Amino acid sequence: MKDFPLSKAYQLIEPGPVVLLTTRHDGKANVMTMSWHMMMEFTPPRIACIVSGADYSFIALAKTEECVIAIPSVEIAEKVVAAGNCSGRDIDKFAEIGLTPLPAAKVSAPLIAECFANLECKVVDQDFVERYNLFVLEVVKAWHDPARPSPKTIHHKGYGTFAVDGEDITLDSKMP
Amino acid sequence: MKDFPLSKAYQLIEPGPVVLLTTRHDGKANVMTMSWHMMMEFTPPRIACIVSGADYSFIALAKTEECVIAIPSVEIAEKVVAAGNCSGRDIDKFAEIGLTPLPAAKVSAPLIAECFANLECKVVDQDFVERYNLFVLEVVKAWHDPARPSPKTIHHKGYGTFAVDGEDITLDSKMP
Repeated sequence: MKDFPLSKAYQLIEPGPVVLLTTRHDGKANVMTMSWHMMMEFTPPRIACIVSGADYSFIALAKTEECVIAIPSVEIAEKVVAAGNCSGRDIDKFAEIGLTPLPAAKVSAPLIAECFANLECKVVDQDFVERYNLFVLEVVKAWHDPARPSPKTIHHKGYGTFAVDGEDITLDSKMP
Repeated sequence: MKDFPLSKAYQLIEPGPVVLLTTRHDGKANVMTMSWHMMMEFTPPRIACIVSGADYSFIALAKTEECVIAIPSVEIAEKVVAAGNCSGRDIDKFAEIGLTPLPAAKVSAPLIAECFANLECKVVDQDFVERYNLFVLEVVKAWHDPARPSPKTIHHKGYGTFAVDGEDITLDSKMP
């Protein structure tokens, strides 16, 4: 994993990929699958996400206020779905599913070696948690794997069906 | 446009497509391009989105508390980018760009005929607008074009580059 500019973090999240969210609480790392997230601000890069109170990760996220958003490509789609099909209450998902935790630089939650990008995040606002389970995150460090410049992400369309990235097109846009 | 079940609205938004957001204020319809949105709740279908105070649509959305999220496919990608490259302050975007407004059922903002799906929305919470420009929407009526069952959406990766949906894959998921 190599350093990735924070100012470009939105280019990873804005397209709506399914991501993995890691946490570490009481020494125990966990990972969940997540599609309900969005960019909120370019600088500092801020991300909103929904983590249900029913998810085992909820308490870890709320208490430690740290997490990693790890972005998988289609090659590990089966592991991504597997992470969504079980709970960290019952098992060590990293060991069971075959995901490799790596130490992060600024948060206790682990990076995931198999993901082409990892965003270290701190929870900066929980005011919408009670009402909507909405956490506001700030990306404090970003990593990517330069060996995989054009990863194909997956986008959940419901009930285990995912659109895989196809071709890229570029149009003359004034938008960053 | 045919009726589409509200309970499945998330299947349109969760994959992270670039969308068009329409409003109508003081009799004038407008449309903007938007990628910063996410599902918040299945039932009622709730969507969060960021609309900058610098966007001309901001006042219309905040004052009328109504909008339509229209979902385009790749065939009209140039129109989607064009809608993001200009402001409704200066022109009638529908006429200039060649988008056809259609009357909605429950909101004053128009549907867009060229989009394969349209979600009529009401703003239900502005408590995070001042802090983050974050609007909470509830989908009150959904439409889709049954003539286009497998539209390819586009996902913004920054500076006018978009990933176009490729193939679908289906895995054995417990997630809705």
